Amino acid sequence: MFFANPRLQYPVRVDTPNPVFARALQQAIGGVEGEIRVMLQYLFQSWGSRGPMKYRDMLLNTGTEEIGHVEMLSTAVALNLEGAPLSFQEEMSKDPIAGAVLNGMNLRHILSTGMGATPENCNGVPFNASHVYASGNIVADMYANVAAESTGRVLATRLYNMTDDAGMKDMLSFLIARDTMHQQQWLAVIEELGGHTAALPVPNSFPQSEEKGEFAYGFFVHSADGSVPEGRWTSGPSLDGKGTFEAMISKPLGEIPQLAPARPDGGAQTEQTTTTPMPGGAPTAL
Amino acid sequence: MFFANPRLQYPVRVDTPNPVFARALQQAIGGVEGEIRVMLQYLFQSWGSRGPMKYRDMLLNTGTEEIGHVEMLSTAVALNLEGAPLSFQEEMSKDPIAGAVLNGMNLRHILSTGMGATPENCNGVPFNASHVYASGNIVADMYANVAAESTGRVLATRLYNMTDDAGMKDMLSFLIARDTMHQQQWLAVIEELGGHTAALPVPNSFPQSEEKGEFAYGFFVHSADGSVPEGRWTSGPSLDGKGTFEAMISKPLGEIPQLAPARPDGGAQTEQTTTTPMPGGAPTAL
Amino acid sequence: MFFANPRLQYPVRVDTPNPVFARALQQAIGGVEGEIRVMLQYLFQSWGSRGPMKYRDMLLNTGTEEIGHVEMLSTAVALNLEGAPLSFQEEMSKDPIAGAVLNGMNLRHILSTGMGATPENCNGVPFNASHVYASGNIVADMYANVAAESTGRVLATRLYNMTDDAGMKDMLSFLIARDTMHQQQWLAVIEELGGHTAALPVPNSFPQSEEKGEFAYGFFVHSADGSVPEGRWTSGPSLDGKGTFEAMISKPLGEIPQLAPARPDGGAQTEQTTTTPMPGGAPTAL
Amino acid sequence: MFFANPRLQYPVRVDTPNPVFARALQQAIGGVEGEIRVMLQYLFQSWGSRGPMKYRDMLLNTGTEEIGHVEMLSTAVALNLEGAPLSFQEEMSKDPIAGAVLNGMNLRHILSTGMGATPENCNGVPFNASHVYASGNIVADMYANVAAESTGRVLATRLYNMTDDAGMKDMLSFLIARDTMHQQQWLAVIEELGGHTAALPVPNSFPQSEEKGEFAYGFFVHSADGSVPEGRWTSGPSLDGKGTFEAMISKPLGEIPQLAPARPDGGAQTEQTTTTPMPGGAPTAL
Amino acid sequence: MFFANPRLQYPVRVDTPNPVFARALQQAIGGVEGEIRVMLQYLFQSWGSRGPMKYRDMLLNTGTEEIGHVEMLSTAVALNLEGAPLSFQEEMSKDPIAGAVLNGMNLRHILSTGMGATPENCNGVPFNASHVYASGNIVADMYANVAAESTGRVLATRLYNMTDDAGMKDMLSFLIARDTMHQQQWLAVIEELGGHTAALPVPNSFPQSEEKGEFAYGFFVHSADGSVPEGRWTSGPSLDGKGTFEAMISKPLGEIPQLAPARPDGGAQTEQTTTTPMPGGAPTAL
Amino acid sequence: MFFANPRLQYPVRVDTPNPVFARALQQAIGGVEGEIRVMLQYLFQSWGSRGPMKYRDMLLNTGTEEIGHVEMLSTAVALNLEGAPLSFQEEMSKDPIAGAVLNGMNLRHILSTGMGATPENCNGVPFNASHVYASGNIVADMYANVAAESTGRVLATRLYNMTDDAGMKDMLSFLIARDTMHQQQWLAVIEELGGHTAALPVPNSFPQSEEKGEFAYGFFVHSADGSVPEGRWTSGPSLDGKGTFEAMISKPLGEIPQLAPARPDGGAQTEQTTTTPMPGGAPTAL
Repeated sequence: MFFANPRLQYPVRVDTPNPVFARALQQAIGGVEGEIRVMLQYLFQSWGSRGPMKYRDMLLNTGTEEIGHVEMLSTAVALNLEGAPLSFQEEMSKDPIAGAVLNGMNLRHILSTGMGATPENCNGVPFNASHVYASGNIVADMYANVAAESTGRVLATRLYNMTDDAGMKDMLSFLIARDTMHQQQWLAVIEELGGHTAALPVPNSFPQSEEKGEFAYGFFVHSADGSVPEGRWTSGPSLDGKGTFEAMISKPLGEIPQLAPARPDGGAQTEQTTTTPMPGGAPTAL
Repeated sequence: MFFANPRLQYPVRVDTPNPVFARALQQAIGGVEGEIRVMLQYLFQSWGSRGPMKYRDMLLNTGTEEIGHVEMLSTAVALNLEGAPLSFQEEMSKDPIAGAVLNGMNLRHILSTGMGATPENCNGVPFNASHVYASGNIVADMYANVAAESTGRVLATRLYNMTDDAGMKDMLSFLIARDTMHQQQWLAVIEELGGHTAALPVPNSFPQSEEKGEFAYGFFVHSADGSVPEGRWTSGPSLDGKGTFEAMISKPLGEIPQLAPARPDGGAQTEQTTTTPMPGGAPTAL
Repeated sequence: MFFANPRLQYPVRVDTPNPVFARALQQAIGGVEGEIRVMLQYLFQSWGSRGPMKYRDMLLNTGTEEIGHVEMLSTAVALNLEGAPLSFQEEMSKDPIAGAVLNGMNLRHILSTGMGATPENCNGVPFNASHVYASGNIVADMYANVAAESTGRVLATRLYNMTDDAGMKDMLSFLIARDTMHQQQWLAVIEELGGHTAALPVPNSFPQSEEKGEFAYGFFVHSADGSVPEGRWTSGPSLDGKGTFEAMISKPLGEIPQLAPARPDGGAQTEQTTTTPMPGGAPTAL
Repeated sequence: MFFANPRLQYPVRVDTPNPVFARALQQAIGGVEGEIRVMLQYLFQSWGSRGPMKYRDMLLNTGTEEIGHVEMLSTAVALNLEGAPLSFQEEMSKDPIAGAVLNGMNLRHILSTGMGATPENCNGVPFNASHVYASGNIVADMYANVAAESTGRVLATRLYNMTDDAGMKDMLSFLIARDTMHQQQWLAVIEELGGHTAALPVPNSFPQSEEKGEFAYGFFVHSADGSVPEGRWTSGPSLDGKGTFEAMISKPLGEIPQLAPARPDGGAQTEQTTTTPMPGGAPTAL
Repeated sequence: MFFANPRLQYPVRVDTPNPVFARALQQAIGGVEGEIRVMLQYLFQSWGSRGPMKYRDMLLNTGTEEIGHVEMLSTAVALNLEGAPLSFQEEMSKDPIAGAVLNGMNLRHILSTGMGATPENCNGVPFNASHVYASGNIVADMYANVAAESTGRVLATRLYNMTDDAGMKDMLSFLIARDTMHQQQWLAVIEELGGHTAALPVPNSFPQSEEKGEFAYGFFVHSADGSVPEGRWTSGPSLDGKGTFEAMISKPLGEIPQLAPARPDGGAQTEQTTTTPMPGGAPTAL
Repeated sequence: MFFANPRLQYPVRVDTPNPVFARALQQAIGGVEGEIRVMLQYLFQSWGSRGPMKYRDMLLNTGTEEIGHVEMLSTAVALNLEGAPLSFQEEMSKDPIAGAVLNGMNLRHILSTGMGATPENCNGVPFNASHVYASGNIVADMYANVAAESTGRVLATRLYNMTDDAGMKDMLSFLIARDTMHQQQWLAVIEELGGHTAALPVPNSFPQSEEKGEFAYGFFVHSADGSVPEGRWTSGPSLDGKGTFEAMISKPLGEIPQLAPARPDGGAQTEQTTTTPMPGGAPTAL
């Protein structure tokens, strides 16, 4: 269960409110790189955790931290909206460049929330919980978390570079540091679990003898002329130490699929109830 | 630009059609762990690629491979639907256990596609392209790709274990092998780019001097009693070699936020146009 | 900021796991009547709160409580999935009625989470944060909260009646009681703000002299023959004491709208670039 | 069944078209506070109505009225788009402030509809019918309706304040009046059904003896230091007359949940197939 | 504006309620082939209609008809749910085949609506108004309408074939007939506007001299071996009489795109701030 | 299976980057009229194709072509973003009209992709695969394809008219030509299948004797006063040659639906567990 302290985890200060920056900040709240996503992701991973209890506990701690990050950013959005125009007339009276601020705002900040944040991204698209990855596999989840914190830190640095408000830069420099730690933290779990050789391929519980081993370490080339983009992934030992990389020209190993004709009572056109091969012959020649 | 061979990349065979397994397979087509997602993700990463051309090219190859995986799985769905019941009467006549197959089907396989696949997950939720991560940062993207292939291989092994159809097991053993390679492949890019020490924290282009360094390698403890889940992430050098892990009890560093009162013409209640502090005193004492 | 205790707010016990009830419980997690919704709704209302500070604080408390309800329900889902079948073969071996349990499960509980909860409803539709109502108007928000707790308690009682598992009934009897309180709590805010006469119409800050007063207390009858469904809303004083209810036969007061013809360079058909009145004459006669 | 009169319910007139206001108006069409939502909500409540027939009939009347409100607002959007620029060149030639109008438009008004409304909100997010609340419980539905009309009237007054177009203000003053009535109307149903004492808690058909009564009228305090936001909801009789409000410090009554370890064939990592307690001891001490 | 008659357009009778058929019927309410879609589509096309007034009027009539179809189907869902089980116990007591009906139900029919319809499809996915096509081009809209009525009639016949309930078959035979008419009706508009030669290509207002005419009537072959699927579309005059069909082997006419390197302050990795050509040489050779 | 050539199908050149036009172009990528939709639609139609093999093959060719169109447009978006401002300061320094470009941008082009395209529409709404129509009926699918290409060409001409960049106009003139062909191509399939008389009504496999023939060719008039919008669809032979058009005044043929009262254990209010007829009598009189 959870508790709250009405104080923020870190100070949130806006020196010069900027309603368009309020729109930008929404990406860090409700965007796919944002904080609602990691909050729910870490909590759901914790609540569904099977296996060693320490990971459930760690995830619970960091998930709880993230709730406070949503809180900080929501406060930052509200503070950036202080003094924003409520009408076209007001906008005009402030500034000869009519409508440039109002036009660039998320109008829901005026119309729907009365100058508060929404759980939406910078385009006003609501957060969709399908982005909460909790696979039941601890390594898959850690990689999902690293991905979330990597795109999250990229986003936070872009917001930092976008603004020249000292208060906002201060808040973001804190969130950027936390993202640094969180990237490390999830990778540290994988290291603790044995790193590449022990943890990969994910899931490591599936016997590799049951996969088609001849295709498990080959880079498939699909360029029409067979040219190969060479790199670490086309030669040398694989990272898990269980195979050797090679480049393989991809070729069709299967046939042209041919489904049964449609049933007369299945809603197709009558012409579909029989199958006609390709005119002029040999589709297998394709 | 793209070309197609009407033959499949690998044979798709169903020995005993199972319409409920057709529903399960949909997760591998339109689920967040599925193939439409990686197809679009790798292609969009390729098309937006900035920097060394070799990564654009590599991504294009693998994105193109994935289109063929969607094709294979869509074929597998259609083959699992051959002979499925179209009506309650038909269901009854086949099997004394009335309705158990029809009830368990994705009814859109009957009603909307006439026994074909949809770009949806196993619950019939349509694929949503917000799951296409293409951040413009090559390492963040690689981690997103590893996450996708890790959850993807987890899914494929679960499907493999769910069925006892030899044809389906054969197809899945191929897809599982490809997921093995793709996990390796994206990690190999990170290794080629210098691994943890060179690539982290993501983005490595942001000067770490501008982040709040004192919080960049600390695990924040949010348990109400300050108990600490110890692990690789609470002590020792950080993985990027740039800091030292420590556990830190999280405390509120900011104040209670207080927004301006609502404007009279802003749609709030009149009572909100003035701010009243907490009754009985000291919210700051919280 | 937030803290967590790894213990649950209230005991969660499942005597006989039922994977289909796990599916049903998802509605209380990620459904529109569920707990993720109220958790985010109360927190966002708190974070965007303008006016008296006490409401911010109250909302924060209850929003924090709700995080723990999501936790309880996620635990209940996982416990109901203990021992669920992972394959068709396993299902068959347990029970002569082949597939009846597996068919009725949310297959993502097997395929995507490894027997854990998802932030989705009972049909597997992910929670969408557009359901977080935080209007910036305290009374509108309170009514939204009452609506959420009313549909939430209806849902909880339906789940209570659906199961005969004593553990689940015990957990639900707690959640039902909390919903009782929460319904009361939000209505108590409205009472504190003066009830119907002071708070209505929402927003009470808009001067009623600027609305078309003659239509503000009339029930509009749209039945084709003008029959009137009589009730408290067709006669007597209005609840806010500011008007008198009456039934009014609705009639078109406006004209037939006629838009300008399409521009030749606007992507319409050429025929749309001129406006032709209705043939045979007088559309205004309609 | 339904009939239409091509004339509008109330005149819609735009004196000075404003394409950015057209974007704002979309919130009243396809936003969660908008008219498509109430139209479908009242109609679905009517069509699924069980119990006294008079409520079915009343809901049908008002649902039918709302169709006409969508029509009025769609007309208002189209009229605000008359003369809007179709190209960057055109925009430039009109106004030295290049792009300020075009930039602020919903580009779908140009690209997708040829200057007409869409069933989307002011950010172009399509209406999603999950917002149609029809719970089968008449009081829950009435509160959902009051919430919809309260946020709806808040929205309408914000639009009214945003514009200085006399035609638009006239139309909105009509819609605002209708929202006044609709707030009253749904509350009048609850009054007719006995008000707080008879109708609450919703559903009133569930025997309160089966809820955990000791938690049914207590305000749970989740602040980390136990401070209590006092109000009408912390003391005195409950609004339904069935209990007494009190403040209760929330404490964990449950245990730390411990799920079974993952199955070896369930797609987890091997390390998850055994459960390890917290290192260093006593997680129950948390 | 709109009016309602509480009687249905056509009788709705269910002889033997079938809760799983209730689930299937939802596809005709909230599915992409369903009636909410056409209702909103025709109404929005009408409300945004520019050009001859007769089309606005016709669309308004048929859009109004469709509201009544949603009403009929919602009634059919509710009637199919009469007597459905509310609990696992009840299910068991009725039928030795435990859970087969309950498992196959849309659980929201129990949990969320109390045995009523939802604006969702057969998988419980809510209707999303992005499916409302109203392009501002009368011929594009008519084709969208034909597509809607074609998939709609296919769906209705599949539902007809799925059930053996005489009442449901009667209702569906009416809806199927209406779909027949509506297919005809929209095609009749295109005929009235001159058919293929006058109306195509859509939009006919764009001067064809500005399109790359050499590619306007060629079927592009993308098979890897250049095999050509011959048909009416590979030779002979085009249907609009303005060109001649031919098959053309598709070849890349453009170059390999090369974007500028990433900016140092743009959130990419440092390695992306320079562009390296393909190793080993000539990407143009690809 | 699929292959790629890294060169583009047609040259993509941007003479003067315009970040707001980049936003507009997104509609052609991820909008409902855009290329991801047709790409997936034609591929899924191909993969689920039953009946004559030639249509599977044709659809595969054109679906493959469309992947390359997404690629071209994604390249065009990235090129239009070259040099776009990353910050408010940068924006200011370039142009006295502060913020007009940045405000009008899709901020995700800065924040989420680092100047690359997303699979979203011009409002940033992600592509949703429910727009992939693949009904299993070849004629219904062809009409869906014609609708897609008609709205697609309308969109492309609007983009063409919006820009004055010669490079962009050249690219669009190619895409417009391809849309011309694709409109023709799908209609040619219908002609090959016998045109209106053989193909309609869709599906032609359903015996028309089972539809209510008396309503199959009547235009239903729903105007409140019975006025009739006359046209090709109100008299003369139907297009399929199987009926005669006529106008019919729509009247309610069904009764007022009356559902069973709510069950006491079903979550309704107690008052709903009995049904009360309309007060004052005769609802059938309505």
